[in-house]
Amino acid sequence: MQRALSVSRMTGNRSTFPEWYQAVIREADLAENSPVRGMMIIKPWGYGVWEEVQRDLDRRIKETGHLNAYFPLFIPLSFFAKEAEHVEGFAKEMAVVTHHRLKAVDGKLEVDPEAKLEEPLIVRPTSETIIADAFQRWIKSHRDLPLLINQWANVVRWEMRTRLFLRTSEFLWQEGHTAHADEADARAETMRMLEVYRAFSEETLAMPVIAGEKPENERFPGAVATYSIEAMMQDGKALQAGTSHYLGQNFARAQNIRFQSAAGELEYCHTTSWGASTRLMGGVIMTHGDDDGLRLPPAVAPRQVVIVPILRDKPEDAEVLAYGEALAKALAATTTFGERTRALLDTRGQRSADKRWDWVRRGAPIIVEIGPRDAAAGQVTFMRRDQLRNGEKVASQSLPREAFIGQVPALLAEIQAGLYADAKAMLDGNIRSDIQSFDELAEYFGQASDDEDEGGAFKGWVRAPWSRPTGAALDAVDARLKALKLTLRNIPLDQSGAGGTCLFTGAPASEEVLIARAY
Amino acid sequence: MQRALSVSRMTGNRSTFPEWYQAVIREADLAENSPVRGMMIIKPWGYGVWEEVQRDLDRRIKETGHLNAYFPLFIPLSFFAKEAEHVEGFAKEMAVVTHHRLKAVDGKLEVDPEAKLEEPLIVRPTSETIIADAFQRWIKSHRDLPLLINQWANVVRWEMRTRLFLRTSEFLWQEGHTAHADEADARAETMRMLEVYRAFSEETLAMPVIAGEKPENERFPGAVATYSIEAMMQDGKALQAGTSHYLGQNFARAQNIRFQSAAGELEYCHTTSWGASTRLMGGVIMTHGDDDGLRLPPAVAPRQVVIVPILRDKPEDAEVLAYGEALAKALAATTTFGERTRALLDTRGQRSADKRWDWVRRGAPIIVEIGPRDAAAGQVTFMRRDQLRNGEKVASQSLPREAFIGQVPALLAEIQAGLYADAKAMLDGNIRSDIQSFDELAEYFGQASDDEDEGGAFKGWVRAPWSRPTGAALDAVDARLKALKLTLRNIPLDQSGAGGTCLFTGAPASEEVLIARAY
Repeated sequence: MQRALSVSRMTGNRSTFPEWYQAVIREADLAENSPVRGMMIIKPWGYGVWEEVQRDLDRRIKETGHLNAYFPLFIPLSFFAKEAEHVEGFAKEMAVVTHHRLKAVDGKLEVDPEAKLEEPLIVRPTSETIIADAFQRWIKSHRDLPLLINQWANVVRWEMRTRLFLRTSEFLWQEGHTAHADEADARAETMRMLEVYRAFSEETLAMPVIAGEKPENERFPGAVATYSIEAMMQDGKALQAGTSHYLGQNFARAQNIRFQSAAGELEYCHTTSWGASTRLMGGVIMTHGDDDGLRLPPAVAPRQVVIVPILRDKPEDAEVLAYGEALAKALAATTTFGERTRALLDTRGQRSADKRWDWVRRGAPIIVEIGPRDAAAGQVTFMRRDQLRNGEKVASQSLPREAFIGQVPALLAEIQAGLYADAKAMLDGNIRSDIQSFDELAEYFGQASDDEDEGGAFKGWVRAPWSRPTGAALDAVDARLKALKLTLRNIPLDQSGAGGTCLFTGAPASEEVLIARAY
Repeated sequence: MQRALSVSRMTGNRSTFPEWYQAVIREADLAENSPVRGMMIIKPWGYGVWEEVQRDLDRRIKETGHLNAYFPLFIPLSFFAKEAEHVEGFAKEMAVVTHHRLKAVDGKLEVDPEAKLEEPLIVRPTSETIIADAFQRWIKSHRDLPLLINQWANVVRWEMRTRLFLRTSEFLWQEGHTAHADEADARAETMRMLEVYRAFSEETLAMPVIAGEKPENERFPGAVATYSIEAMMQDGKALQAGTSHYLGQNFARAQNIRFQSAAGELEYCHTTSWGASTRLMGGVIMTHGDDDGLRLPPAVAPRQVVIVPILRDKPEDAEVLAYGEALAKALAATTTFGERTRALLDTRGQRSADKRWDWVRRGAPIIVEIGPRDAAAGQVTFMRRDQLRNGEKVASQSLPREAFIGQVPALLAEIQAGLYADAKAMLDGNIRSDIQSFDELAEYFGQASDDEDEGGAFKGWVRAPWSRPTGAALDAVDARLKALKLTLRNIPLDQSGAGGTCLFTGAPASEEVLIARAY
């Protein structure tokens, strides 16, 4: 059977999954490693997906009242000392700028030792401290609140082991930072943005998630509460796809963010922060990819319909091209998800069969092939990327031109819904909630190998009753799970209320927690 | 007379212009200096303008066949050594990353000396070298050409003397990088993008420009030809608002960017690059600002119509708010420049008079004030920011609600056209082409003070015949102009063909060159 990819994502166990992931990224032309260790180049097709992600998420962020702004790339080292807990918990693997000039010595460029900075500058790993510093200057009165700011930016965290989109030393993200007059308003904001991420992930990325609160040991350093959305990848691992933090008055106290209340008192603000990154791209790939490559949800496909003309260096080529061009134009005049349908006529010089497989690998939702017979008959022959095969064979169908154009918006909506339904069935079908003891848990997941990308049979998640241990008791839980390569993902907002006994402490359970291997 | 700004842009001479510029930025809430020397914070209103700039320019870049991608923030030091001429000419003031970790010593954070990088990394001042490295890997055959890539990114150039938007150590920009099979195609691309910048600047920013080729000494290091668009600011200085470079095969040879031609030969590509930055924001301010603050061309105004409800803590407030809300909604349903009209009801808690002046300073094109009488009578009272005053008084006019809504798109188009026409008249009226000798030139511009922001009477530009000297002869011209604080801006594409004698060499002139003081 002809496959677009050389690697299959599952051959009875998960050992080939990472290899498959790399193959999709390479063969769908999404990204590649750069000459700078740990930093990626996002190639045009991958960046096109990111632009759609950005556009949709940005709209949701603005609709909830936030404005975008831009803060400096560099942060003075001394700023990191202001929030002790933040510094303590935060990884210290950061890029440090120490000099500001090069000089030519014997025709070679060197760092000029005389251009040493008085204070080292850190390339932002996140902008909490520098934005808090601005908030402290901007906020004077309760009338300035809530202050709702978002930033789209690149950030750098020096990573030793990197993987494209999932963990890179530089990544792109948005970081929201808000300040409020009281706890209720800040907590409402935290939950509102968690819901924005959930809705965005499910509606736009067709990636179902479970939203919940992180256990205390997984909180953002300095946060009072951290919430996440967790998605299940096709190898059963969890991917944290967005986080929202209620920071209490911790950052406000550290950075002196105060306001005069209506009553005239000087009070500390309550702040929040929330973020999502190019990591989402990894989520899309591992949620929707198959053995033929990527399958893109139409809502984030840079091109929703790609038309490949079958050209044979014959006179009828002109007719085929004209027919394809008119079709692309007619499609661009239709509306999908409230916007112009994104159609492309692929006129590159490659063989048409190669181009077809190229678009299969890249995951274009609808791929049209136009030959002389189609042009003559006013027909359109097309493949749905979500239903590429009928058994072993590639499945295509034909429709009269007008009928096809009329059906495209509904077809794209159907593909979007179908990808979501498949992923939702996968998520719902692979969370066990019948595990009663830690031994059972250990038995289910079995021994993990030393390799991070351990093989073995597919395992999903476990949803288990627990008593929300804290402090040292939680550390002990964490250590036992770590030995099984497991982590606590979150405490789902949506609780069954089943009760039971805590898997770890034996005490009466207060709620359920999600346990999984994770990216 | 009540003014929104405390500083006037012209009081008989240009000495207050820089002060006025800072005042507009501050009082229109566009940007501010950050705690990191030379780096700015772009505040929400300023960033909102930048987002409109980006959106429109991005559309034009895509319509001409380019795709966006993203390349690493850091560039290995050794990459800068590859293109000798590039390195030689390029400023060496760059931010250098030398370490990748901090450590806590006695509760204080320090740079960890053990985490020194083997090779220093440069924070990109431009991405020529790292993108060329990718092109070298990506391009194999003539079928891969032309390769048309654009990147939106932040870049860092260590600047000693900075000014918000005009010269900052970090700025935002787009940089296009393309590779072509032959010179003709690459030169056509260079001119196509120069024309994109011209059209964007004039149509979207309402900022008239003169497009032309830079003299040899002003070329981008390593370029065969550099073109620019130059805009005239209200103090008569020139602002270079976009550049487009034909790089010949220089970068391709240095970085080994080769392709197999249709004939089977291995050939070097011809490459181009072109860029525009947040400097454009400075151009918008200095082209359209007045003594009341900023005036935004409607095409880039984040809010085109702002409605200020006049509230008095009385029962009729509810009616005023409801009326304002319905008006904002009705306006958002209209179409301006092919998009949804951007309307805002300003419900902030400040006094309505303060809000009105706030929007005047920020340059919202149409400012509506809604009082109980307007609501009751179904009227709309509004100000045009481009015609704010009638003599000394603020001018407002009233229209029935439906008539106002119907007229808004045309009104915004009229404001856009009016701002352009004013700026165009200013440009056309202040280029002298009657200067016959260098002495006359010196007399016209007079002695410049030592201060960069020298005062003195307003001077425009001079368009003078010259013989296009090169090498040492050009250096001599440059030095003579420099003594007068003057620079050669460009050789306009649109030549009068008048002939005459070169202002500098006395030889017969081959063309005309623009001479001006510049930012």
